[in-house]
Amino acid sequence: MTLQTEAEAAFDPNADRLREECGVFGIFGHADAAALTALGLHALQHRGQEAAGIVTFDGKRFHSERRLGLVGDAFSEVSVIEKLKGKQAIGHVRYSTTGETILRNVQPLFAELHGGGFAVAHNGNLTNGLTLRRNLVRDGAIYQSTSDTEVLLQLVARSRKPRFIERFVEAIRQIEGAYAFVGMTNKKLIGARDPLGIRPLVLGELDGCPILTSETCALDIIGAKFVREIENGEVVVISESGIESHKPFPPMVERPCIFEYIYFARPDSIVKGRSIYERRKQMGAQLAAEAPANADVIVPVPDSGVPAALGFAQASGIPFELGIIRNHYVGRTFIEPTQKVRELGVRLKHSANRSVVEGKSIVLVDDSIVRGTTSLKIVKMMREAGAREVHFRISSPPITHPDYYGIDTPDREKLLAATHSLEEMRQFVGADSLAFLSVDGLYRAMGHAGRDPVRPQFTDHCFTGDYPTSLTDVVGESAKQQISLLAEAG
Amino acid sequence: MTLQTEAEAAFDPNADRLREECGVFGIFGHADAAALTALGLHALQHRGQEAAGIVTFDGKRFHSERRLGLVGDAFSEVSVIEKLKGKQAIGHVRYSTTGETILRNVQPLFAELHGGGFAVAHNGNLTNGLTLRRNLVRDGAIYQSTSDTEVLLQLVARSRKPRFIERFVEAIRQIEGAYAFVGMTNKKLIGARDPLGIRPLVLGELDGCPILTSETCALDIIGAKFVREIENGEVVVISESGIESHKPFPPMVERPCIFEYIYFARPDSIVKGRSIYERRKQMGAQLAAEAPANADVIVPVPDSGVPAALGFAQASGIPFELGIIRNHYVGRTFIEPTQKVRELGVRLKHSANRSVVEGKSIVLVDDSIVRGTTSLKIVKMMREAGAREVHFRISSPPITHPDYYGIDTPDREKLLAATHSLEEMRQFVGADSLAFLSVDGLYRAMGHAGRDPVRPQFTDHCFTGDYPTSLTDVVGESAKQQISLLAEAG
Amino acid sequence: MTLQTEAEAAFDPNADRLREECGVFGIFGHADAAALTALGLHALQHRGQEAAGIVTFDGKRFHSERRLGLVGDAFSEVSVIEKLKGKQAIGHVRYSTTGETILRNVQPLFAELHGGGFAVAHNGNLTNGLTLRRNLVRDGAIYQSTSDTEVLLQLVARSRKPRFIERFVEAIRQIEGAYAFVGMTNKKLIGARDPLGIRPLVLGELDGCPILTSETCALDIIGAKFVREIENGEVVVISESGIESHKPFPPMVERPCIFEYIYFARPDSIVKGRSIYERRKQMGAQLAAEAPANADVIVPVPDSGVPAALGFAQASGIPFELGIIRNHYVGRTFIEPTQKVRELGVRLKHSANRSVVEGKSIVLVDDSIVRGTTSLKIVKMMREAGAREVHFRISSPPITHPDYYGIDTPDREKLLAATHSLEEMRQFVGADSLAFLSVDGLYRAMGHAGRDPVRPQFTDHCFTGDYPTSLTDVVGESAKQQISLLAEAG
Amino acid sequence: MTLQTEAEAAFDPNADRLREECGVFGIFGHADAAALTALGLHALQHRGQEAAGIVTFDGKRFHSERRLGLVGDAFSEVSVIEKLKGKQAIGHVRYSTTGETILRNVQPLFAELHGGGFAVAHNGNLTNGLTLRRNLVRDGAIYQSTSDTEVLLQLVARSRKPRFIERFVEAIRQIEGAYAFVGMTNKKLIGARDPLGIRPLVLGELDGCPILTSETCALDIIGAKFVREIENGEVVVISESGIESHKPFPPMVERPCIFEYIYFARPDSIVKGRSIYERRKQMGAQLAAEAPANADVIVPVPDSGVPAALGFAQASGIPFELGIIRNHYVGRTFIEPTQKVRELGVRLKHSANRSVVEGKSIVLVDDSIVRGTTSLKIVKMMREAGAREVHFRISSPPITHPDYYGIDTPDREKLLAATHSLEEMRQFVGADSLAFLSVDGLYRAMGHAGRDPVRPQFTDHCFTGDYPTSLTDVVGESAKQQISLLAEAG
Repeated sequence: MTLQTEAEAAFDPNADRLREECGVFGIFGHADAAALTALGLHALQHRGQEAAGIVTFDGKRFHSERRLGLVGDAFSEVSVIEKLKGKQAIGHVRYSTTGETILRNVQPLFAELHGGGFAVAHNGNLTNGLTLRRNLVRDGAIYQSTSDTEVLLQLVARSRKPRFIERFVEAIRQIEGAYAFVGMTNKKLIGARDPLGIRPLVLGELDGCPILTSETCALDIIGAKFVREIENGEVVVISESGIESHKPFPPMVERPCIFEYIYFARPDSIVKGRSIYERRKQMGAQLAAEAPANADVIVPVPDSGVPAALGFAQASGIPFELGIIRNHYVGRTFIEPTQKVRELGVRLKHSANRSVVEGKSIVLVDDSIVRGTTSLKIVKMMREAGAREVHFRISSPPITHPDYYGIDTPDREKLLAATHSLEEMRQFVGADSLAFLSVDGLYRAMGHAGRDPVRPQFTDHCFTGDYPTSLTDVVGESAKQQISLLAEAG
Repeated sequence: MTLQTEAEAAFDPNADRLREECGVFGIFGHADAAALTALGLHALQHRGQEAAGIVTFDGKRFHSERRLGLVGDAFSEVSVIEKLKGKQAIGHVRYSTTGETILRNVQPLFAELHGGGFAVAHNGNLTNGLTLRRNLVRDGAIYQSTSDTEVLLQLVARSRKPRFIERFVEAIRQIEGAYAFVGMTNKKLIGARDPLGIRPLVLGELDGCPILTSETCALDIIGAKFVREIENGEVVVISESGIESHKPFPPMVERPCIFEYIYFARPDSIVKGRSIYERRKQMGAQLAAEAPANADVIVPVPDSGVPAALGFAQASGIPFELGIIRNHYVGRTFIEPTQKVRELGVRLKHSANRSVVEGKSIVLVDDSIVRGTTSLKIVKMMREAGAREVHFRISSPPITHPDYYGIDTPDREKLLAATHSLEEMRQFVGADSLAFLSVDGLYRAMGHAGRDPVRPQFTDHCFTGDYPTSLTDVVGESAKQQISLLAEAG
Repeated sequence: MTLQTEAEAAFDPNADRLREECGVFGIFGHADAAALTALGLHALQHRGQEAAGIVTFDGKRFHSERRLGLVGDAFSEVSVIEKLKGKQAIGHVRYSTTGETILRNVQPLFAELHGGGFAVAHNGNLTNGLTLRRNLVRDGAIYQSTSDTEVLLQLVARSRKPRFIERFVEAIRQIEGAYAFVGMTNKKLIGARDPLGIRPLVLGELDGCPILTSETCALDIIGAKFVREIENGEVVVISESGIESHKPFPPMVERPCIFEYIYFARPDSIVKGRSIYERRKQMGAQLAAEAPANADVIVPVPDSGVPAALGFAQASGIPFELGIIRNHYVGRTFIEPTQKVRELGVRLKHSANRSVVEGKSIVLVDDSIVRGTTSLKIVKMMREAGAREVHFRISSPPITHPDYYGIDTPDREKLLAATHSLEEMRQFVGADSLAFLSVDGLYRAMGHAGRDPVRPQFTDHCFTGDYPTSLTDVVGESAKQQISLLAEAG
Repeated sequence: MTLQTEAEAAFDPNADRLREECGVFGIFGHADAAALTALGLHALQHRGQEAAGIVTFDGKRFHSERRLGLVGDAFSEVSVIEKLKGKQAIGHVRYSTTGETILRNVQPLFAELHGGGFAVAHNGNLTNGLTLRRNLVRDGAIYQSTSDTEVLLQLVARSRKPRFIERFVEAIRQIEGAYAFVGMTNKKLIGARDPLGIRPLVLGELDGCPILTSETCALDIIGAKFVREIENGEVVVISESGIESHKPFPPMVERPCIFEYIYFARPDSIVKGRSIYERRKQMGAQLAAEAPANADVIVPVPDSGVPAALGFAQASGIPFELGIIRNHYVGRTFIEPTQKVRELGVRLKHSANRSVVEGKSIVLVDDSIVRGTTSLKIVKMMREAGAREVHFRISSPPITHPDYYGIDTPDREKLLAATHSLEEMRQFVGADSLAFLSVDGLYRAMGHAGRDPVRPQFTDHCFTGDYPTSLTDVVGESAKQQISLLAEAG
């Protein structure tokens, strides 16, 4: 039971959340390409807060601006947008694990190839990236980053095919894993989604100009129209002559990542015609049916548990109340105070709303438990605020397996559900009762009768261990730090 | 109808909110005085986001750190806290109007008086500050700031009384207006509240050490105990020998500012034994009774309208739904894009949750309307998302008069309700119906039978024009910029 | 013999030089007042490198910009100069001892007095500043800085005289010590020099606009004409109606600081009709006569010893050679390398020019010895470069007493000549012979027959112990840090 | 006569000087490798002030730190040096033309090759760099910089030879131009000098550890011993097993760049057993013989003309005097003042020492004239200070041809001597007489009987047009900006 040792987690309830590794945006032919891309990236900020970049092409030259930090900070000045000239732009927001948040890894990556420049932005993770990297270096390639995305640049650079699209296809045929790419040459905007469609990519349109992006909320923010989702295994090529669609892979059944629905996508994004908000309320309602509780109030963990808590409240008829208040003015970081102060267990980001929970039996609703370190603090906060009973309800199944497709999950031994029984987890978080949504319940909330064990409708290995592709690097990977011989000094 | 011209308001729904001018915190005798003060100020951050400062005393010398920006940024490093040595500390968070946000105005202010140093932090506004300032300058005083608070320092400096507390009382007897002061000498922590108790101040305690602060939420964050509210017209002096209470003014009936309840205080703060959250829910419930609407869903304007919307929903039985989604990743500022992009009416901080509002009749709930410029955009956003009917409900009365006691209100002619009838306001914001909570309804939500016209229980001039003190400066004030002959270059 | 312990001195031959505490500049009626002031301050940069400030008046308001660092950095942008509007400006460059280099001490200081604003810049030091400060604080004054200069502001603020000039004179009559003030009101530019004329101040003119500044080189840089020196004890008042001269003190014989000639003033500045360069060459020639040496080459310590070395060479007929090369690209600071590297005795700012000194008997010429720590390193460097004999010659007398008039001298016990005989000093620096210019020789180089013991022509207490004014604060001063109760956190 | 239009040149007498493009340093096996490299680069700072970098290897990983600015600023903190772990280090200082001073071009460049990492620093310029770059990109190479140096990395990366040294030799055999390389692998320090030895490289030693660097002054600063110069066309490989020398090119007669002697090298550096200072004095003496002048004083243009002026003075018997004073406190930049102020012709970096030149006939000595724009200002300054006659003497021949080997010369039409006769030049600079050192005179000052027209002893095309290698890129180069398709945004 040594899971709760990470002191800094005390200060950030989000410290125990999973991180998506990116959002992408591209637009073709619009006079305000860079400004619109910045706005689109701002709407995708929940997919990555560590860095952002935009590359544009002005008919003659490419322009690049890549920065650490939020889009609203990095691209906050007119002067920055003005430098990003041109009617074509692609952009990227990024989350990455500590140590690799270095400027040379910030996307879009760019290379000057024979025939012209090529920029690319990537959401996802390649499961044979390291293996390909080693082979290419043996063959004389020099890498500018430690990002797996650069493999794509190197493969395209080395292809001998005459047309660019042939070179691109030759490259993606060699890679494995999950990806939504948005790329740009001096003539084309290119989108590509992996054969299973694990990572999302949609096509939109503004003033007749095509847009490719991760979620519909990036279309909404600029008033763009949703056209359609890019299909799994599809490559779209957008140019002056219109939009071509290529299908370079054998046909497969789509299997999108279920975590987009539970967790990553913004509530107002629409996937397959239904809002994420509705799906999450449905998960809450399904949870109320599977694991009811006799309680006085429903209290969401803000903001992750709010839609599911509303669904739970409406299904159960128990009142929804804000038992936890969020402080919106949290700066970039905060003091690491003295040991004494640390022991106070200070809550910088949330506080209990005592008048709501005092003397009550409450149902506390969140969307997931990863390590459990934050959950136990929230339960404790509720008890200290006078809650008589705390029934903890999680609107997704227990996470038992790590991800290798672009979600930053901890090692398996740090996943609470991988090493604890349900009863042990209940004791760990200190709740009076604990329940998770079942896997079939999750699929039902998504509109299916249940999980199809033969052809599962979603990528759901975190709950089931059923990985949808081969994991080439995982087998051979010695240690992550060996990617680079160069220790970044700063 | 020229009210909607401010383009930048398009980007920030909070652009049309009133600003409180400060929060204060002081602690006496605690080994972690500076760290606890920083945490207390963080909990008070909603009272002022432009600057923060802390002054400590270490038994020999005072230490001061005053910075522009959020507490979590300004006091984020151990090294800063370590510089602030000592067991006594006072701190301040500040909002101020543009142009005066200069470092020399950031509080606590400090002066070296005969007999030792004196630091002071102030929430409120003096209505005879300019008049006193001119008299003192005529008498040879040199000011270091343009803050009205410095008048107190100068008056104390010039008093010929032998004991410090006598000098302090002589000073506050000369000032008029609203104030909650927290001051510190090399031996004492001092708190003072104006004769009507317009601004709040409470006494708490941690590990036996007294604390003075604006709201109970600043006690909760560090696990301190609430002791009592400082009374209107009371001066408390905290020293090694304990807590003394002085009453230097003739007794008056308390008349706290009603806006603290409606608007400024954090929902989890407790005033007079009841949580602000409960009071706001009650305002929403009262509003549902006064101005019901036949609608499908209740939609709060986040986050200001959430408690009242929950109260309205529970009282009316209509479901509460998140029809507006807030983007939590807004950076410091954001691009001012091209004219074309500006015309898109981009929503950087909020977006409509179309699935909730499309085809529905909705009740939109907010806590107030100031200029109305934001309200009309939110109504428009709801309509563009497909709302069939928009019934706008405001959980406080119309604001018709400016404040002079520490709330930054626009000039009277910019207050929508000061120049428009209810029907004109409805047309301006574009709602199908519009209703405000009545003044008596507001008092009822606060637990009274209604407003006592002879001895009103609250300071409520913004709704009624009934100012509780004389306005010495307002009469004689020529123009605000004449306070200083020095135009701050940076 | 513990004088050589300061390791950092190893890296900076200037670490052992005395520091002047300021240069001033003011101009009246010129459209480019701020730009010209910045240029004038740049020419005075040798008088203070730690901070610089400019205050202007535009007919309505004052504008102030005060910054740490060099003039060329602090005032390098057009935008800064553009903020400093108006045709009247005063400016200041400052050197100060560590710990007090805080922004609130950077001059010009400014105060809003009854009757209007007043800005002042000061070169010198008041010997009763602390005493006056304490009296004023007892009387209710609040100080904004720890600078002795602020005493002048407070005294002027409190004067009850009707005209500004009367208030100013009443103030300077109360102060003692050395000063050259340049002040500015909304109508006037004011210059004042102490009764003995210890610190310099000259009047110039450009395009018909009067200028007051510390040295003529600040006139030369902008092509201004030299008019005359301000006399000792004179106050000049410059306004639209011309230049008035006041003599508020009883007449005294001028006694300027001899260190300006030896050390501080720029070689191209003209004082009493003769260039500083000439005076220094003359000191070298006088030294060659007093203390000849049979040597192969004359080597100056750059850059302080160059003019005297040229004078010595021309008088002695021995060739002048650059035996020490200066590195002009020294950044702000430099690494403090490992212990091993430190032991190498690295010379970051100078290096020996081996081809000049190897196998030679050299005369090494410098303008002074303070602690002696640098001198011994330079002698050692010459020996390591192969010098056969090193005859060290100093073109001023031994420094035996500290200054209290604006020169930052170390405590008496750290002055090499205060605690060592000539032979002990020779041994300490490691030279084959050592000689200083005699006091009478110094006066002869200045054109006198020798020092008049009854009415010495110069302020020369550092060599003679003969202080020209009373030292009120020195007697009563307990400790410097008691000036302020506030420890500046940063 | 439109040469004098560049207004900013008015502010910087160095604005018209040529720029060297780099200095290199490498050390093998020393515990303080990074600190010593920083010190060595500091001593080489005159060879490049725009950026500096150091790469180290700690036995396991490489560490890199590359920054814009001076060495003393960029590597001023212990923390930076501490990050640069390991006993092997190479470093680089860089000057480059505007627009390319971007971080990705700062050296040493680094690449992770099959077999391990490789870092390289380069002084010089490749005359077929662009041609090779295009060929390599056609073959799939991706460049990380626009530096010609990267060609070497790419060539080494693609070599199929088994041993590293064979791969390195295969690479340098393909390049043309001038170079002194210092490279580093995980086992070796490598030095290489081009077949003609145009750029300098010397071998030194400290505590038994070999050092490679551009000039001996970088050895002196750390007390290292000079061993020998690396020969033209030599490759040295330093490893645990000692120092190997390779000679991969056919033997050629050395032909070092004459500009190192005239201009670039530090005066205290030793080349071929003689100090640069001596050589320059000799050039001045030779000039006095070739072009005597009947004058009162010799005035050097500081600091470039000082050694030649001393030589001229000693040969002619005319006194050497500092007629121009340099301001040492020039910040990074300085204000661009108003038009009026600009017309004053302000001298921020130098001023006339009037007492020296007034009424005199002077010989003004400098080391070269490039565009002539600064020279005319200096002559004008001397005249305005009262010089009766100005005889301008240049201690090198007229520059008539641009360089392509690492010196940043202006286009030919901007070189004053390329487009003006001697008499036209005299009129342009406004001197009473003007003379340059003859080419044969220059060779004589270098110890030769004169220039050998068949096998010139030095690379001297700037004076003679005799380029020592083929200029592959110059013929084919279209425009410099086509090197990169990516316009660096910041």
